Amino acid sequence: MRATIVTIGDEILIGQIVDTNSGFIAKSLDRIGIEVHEMLSISDSQQHIFDTFSKLQDTVDVVIITGGLGPTKDDVTKKTFCDYFEDELVVDKAVLGHVTQLIEGYFKRKITQINKDQALVPSKATVFHNQYGTAPGLWMKKGDTVFVSLPGVPFEMKYLIENEIIPKLVKEYERPYILHKTILTYGQGESLVAERIEEWEDSLPAFIKLAYLPAYGKLRLRLTARGTDKKMLEETIAECVSSLDAIIHDIIVGFEEDETIELILGRMLSERNLSLSTAESCTGGKIAEMIASVPGASNYFKGSIVAYATDVKINVLGVSESVINEYSVVSAEVAKAMVLNVKTLLKTDYAIATTGNAGPAKGEATAEVGTVFIALATPNEILVEEFNFGQPREKVIDRASVKGLEMLLKEISKKEQ
Amino acid sequence: MRATIVTIGDEILIGQIVDTNSGFIAKSLDRIGIEVHEMLSISDSQQHIFDTFSKLQDTVDVVIITGGLGPTKDDVTKKTFCDYFEDELVVDKAVLGHVTQLIEGYFKRKITQINKDQALVPSKATVFHNQYGTAPGLWMKKGDTVFVSLPGVPFEMKYLIENEIIPKLVKEYERPYILHKTILTYGQGESLVAERIEEWEDSLPAFIKLAYLPAYGKLRLRLTARGTDKKMLEETIAECVSSLDAIIHDIIVGFEEDETIELILGRMLSERNLSLSTAESCTGGKIAEMIASVPGASNYFKGSIVAYATDVKINVLGVSESVINEYSVVSAEVAKAMVLNVKTLLKTDYAIATTGNAGPAKGEATAEVGTVFIALATPNEILVEEFNFGQPREKVIDRASVKGLEMLLKEISKKEQ
Repeated sequence: MRATIVTIGDEILIGQIVDTNSGFIAKSLDRIGIEVHEMLSISDSQQHIFDTFSKLQDTVDVVIITGGLGPTKDDVTKKTFCDYFEDELVVDKAVLGHVTQLIEGYFKRKITQINKDQALVPSKATVFHNQYGTAPGLWMKKGDTVFVSLPGVPFEMKYLIENEIIPKLVKEYERPYILHKTILTYGQGESLVAERIEEWEDSLPAFIKLAYLPAYGKLRLRLTARGTDKKMLEETIAECVSSLDAIIHDIIVGFEEDETIELILGRMLSERNLSLSTAESCTGGKIAEMIASVPGASNYFKGSIVAYATDVKINVLGVSESVINEYSVVSAEVAKAMVLNVKTLLKTDYAIATTGNAGPAKGEATAEVGTVFIALATPNEILVEEFNFGQPREKVIDRASVKGLEMLLKEISKKEQ
Repeated sequence: MRATIVTIGDEILIGQIVDTNSGFIAKSLDRIGIEVHEMLSISDSQQHIFDTFSKLQDTVDVVIITGGLGPTKDDVTKKTFCDYFEDELVVDKAVLGHVTQLIEGYFKRKITQINKDQALVPSKATVFHNQYGTAPGLWMKKGDTVFVSLPGVPFEMKYLIENEIIPKLVKEYERPYILHKTILTYGQGESLVAERIEEWEDSLPAFIKLAYLPAYGKLRLRLTARGTDKKMLEETIAECVSSLDAIIHDIIVGFEEDETIELILGRMLSERNLSLSTAESCTGGKIAEMIASVPGASNYFKGSIVAYATDVKINVLGVSESVINEYSVVSAEVAKAMVLNVKTLLKTDYAIATTGNAGPAKGEATAEVGTVFIALATPNEILVEEFNFGQPREKVIDRASVKGLEMLLKEISKKEQ
């Protein structure tokens, strides 16, 4: 059972927006055992869409299309559906009622012809109600392939995938079982880990595939098993993970599919009843934002002082002016004072502080662009490290934020070994 | 002159990571007048890669491939290059020297066989030095199509695109001229704007294409012109924009290609020599982070107090305990106190504050999940608005953050009309 995901829109092909819809759809299909064969982004042109449909028909079982369904003239998917399926557009009364209610009832505007046209659908299509927007989802079959068209607005698409498309696919198709297990490691590179687990990797059964997914300091190892015997797959994966854990236990930090460092830390802090604060200069609130993105963060995260300007470091965070003058604002001493003061002010067990130059200009500090001092306060001590994360600005901010969280993770883990 | 961008990696097809490389490459190609025909994500399988190469050959001029070049066993692109181009892998001495230097000199580790294998390249390939990593870029031609293979790590790929691939494409190919102009509007929906500009849209010349790109409260209109007469294209686009501006001047806020609300605000605050601070509860530092992401933010952004816990609202931000007890922590009164206090503490002209419940649990507050109060302090007054952004958590945080910035944008713009 295979699917291809198609995204329609010139804005993707010129790099103006990044397609995140395909990833969401892929994950949803994967969970019900449908293999995503390819993802494809194509232009808004009717000819291009038509040709793509022709090529995909009978090569995969399902084609899921997003985009090109909006109310304006650059959206052409529905017309192409009519051409391809030799059909015509008709008014769907349920959709028209919903659009009218949404525009006149909710948005308190007069309904326009463009709004009304959203209720036009190919006469042979199965139509799915879009609770969050005006463009409905469509389902049409030709040959052995189902073509599903969804609006490109992410939360409208997500609603339809979760509530309509996945349930219908589950009901109508038999699917094999796909099982993934992700092992998250921190602190060692891809090559080194590969050498350590080479023997283990060579001994994996043929129906289990291993992938290395490296990113900023962390490395995820993903095992994928495919088959029909769910119990056997689960047992085999569990054995593989257990024998892997015996080899690289020192660097494994988690096993969840969507595990991130902020989720792991959240769990650790919550379980141990520890609290955290941050004092941020060059990261500008990014560390706080990452921590607060985790549901339940209020159990351990008390807050942050984003001391971007030097006078806020002095007047709000209480860093001594003479320390700043003596060592400069980007220095180990200032990072230490920031972390100690925020820990005291916000009354937390741990604190993280950053001061650095994210660029692009050198600014008032003498530090090179990319230089960041990160300080960590634990209940007993203050640690500080100097880094150079290079350029551009975005990378410096991201890396410094992740590194600050990694330093904390390392310290909390250490206490237990 | 057309290109297809291919991403190799099972992790993309199961939705574990989102492909951001293709967007960057697309933008870079678009700038030099190369049209991206399609983007394609395929699996790590040699057969799939080989078949994709066969299909693409002679249908586009350039194929740019990322991923599948790493040191580990799941990376198969180089082997497929050898199969497809009937070539063999040989050691590239320059790459070997670079890899050795990077591993032993920079990372201070003993070089392994897996590291050394990174220096194996197809004998007929043009090899590009990867300054930031161990996998080199490759360039090989078959028929009328150039195949370029780049590592999947984003900053390694970016370095090679900017410093090697784009300059070589510019040198070796004649390209037409592509011109984009993006008009950013706030406050009106796609359908309504489409009705207002219908006549203008119908009168656009055939070589200019209009696209509507809606997102959270904002709508971008993108004009694209293609041709050989650069001057004529520029003049025509300028005329179109000017006539559009005459129709919807009230909702246009900017014209830059990569314009975001934080960039526009940054420019406005900078030019007017105004300063800004934030006091954030449910947004957890997201507003601060967005503001600080802009180069030069230190000219107007002084900092933020992320008062996540109630006691931080009281002890650090100085919100009165009796106000919290009387109105609850998620209330207009608390938002007002937060915004006023942060403005005073950080000595800024403007301030934004948020307090709400981002979910998923209801927490100690009585407010429904999704409820957010956003307060704005201007030099003369305090405004507060109540919103319900629904679910999930991520959407509430994102929307509340953007909305806070929009309220500020609206107020600053208003002062000038």
